[in-house]
Amino acid sequence: MRWDDIDKQVCSVARALSIVGERWTMLIIRDAFLGTRRFDQFQANLGITRHRLSERLGKLVDQGVLVKVPYHERPLRYEYRLTRKGLGLYPVLMSLSRWGDEWMDKGEGAPLEYVHQKCGKKLRAQLTCSECGEPLRPEEVKPQLGPALQALVGQPGEQGGAHPDIPPLLRVSVE
Amino acid sequence: MRWDDIDKQVCSVARALSIVGERWTMLIIRDAFLGTRRFDQFQANLGITRHRLSERLGKLVDQGVLVKVPYHERPLRYEYRLTRKGLGLYPVLMSLSRWGDEWMDKGEGAPLEYVHQKCGKKLRAQLTCSECGEPLRPEEVKPQLGPALQALVGQPGEQGGAHPDIPPLLRVSVE
Repeated sequence: MRWDDIDKQVCSVARALSIVGERWTMLIIRDAFLGTRRFDQFQANLGITRHRLSERLGKLVDQGVLVKVPYHERPLRYEYRLTRKGLGLYPVLMSLSRWGDEWMDKGEGAPLEYVHQKCGKKLRAQLTCSECGEPLRPEEVKPQLGPALQALVGQPGEQGGAHPDIPPLLRVSVE
Repeated sequence: MRWDDIDKQVCSVARALSIVGERWTMLIIRDAFLGTRRFDQFQANLGITRHRLSERLGKLVDQGVLVKVPYHERPLRYEYRLTRKGLGLYPVLMSLSRWGDEWMDKGEGAPLEYVHQKCGKKLRAQLTCSECGEPLRPEEVKPQLGPALQALVGQPGEQGGAHPDIPPLLRVSVE
């Protein structure tokens, strides 16, 4: 499979990564959450080529993660703001940050700490169950076919009973 | 900045992405969480070249995310298992999955659903505050310098007061 085709997998992780799974993209998102809006600021922060930054920002705009908003008329200039879809990446970003804090702090402690203004305390971002509120442990979570994969099951593809858009792994391991 | 140098930033997101921020790597992690352990299985699932897969797996082993465990003696064969550090990526994976479910389901519903065996219900993964248990909203979370960045502040680098290892953005935007 080519990387450019991973959004065709019936898998939400693959689809998400088709937008944010390339080098630099999540660092652009990080900077957007920290307040960066303008092309030159992103470029100064990240130190990547203008060509690459332009390509990445363009893709994030095309995919509705960022929106271009004019901030100056003559000459016309735009800034980039997170959309609701973009703001939805906050849990991904905070989970990466916590993992980096826990496993890659080089013994120096966290680079950043986060204060929850709602309760006033320093927080760790914690993934919990929406239903019971308990922290999620992988061994206690069981994946099962959802509507999108159920609709494909029973629609045999070219490969003898397995639809080609179902990731091979899911064909065998999910009941 | 070159991509290979992003782990030198004093930023947990950048450090995490230096390991998992390249094409394919998080899909390898996804498959490992779904039960894949052997090279040929990863290759069949992902459909990438053996060379690239070998490079990605090798890096994950070097970084302690996966561990190679022999499963056959003659010839000697290894499988790849998630370490505790690797299991720590579960929130990243589930957050990507939920974002894909919410924003990229193409109107067909989720590919996979998740049942929380602890409470017996279908769950959505939710990022919450470790202290008060409330869902985290970016506008209610305030970043501040942690120990690692505090230690750098007051140690001027070559750029006139700003240490070169502090991401430029953090030099200006974090109080």
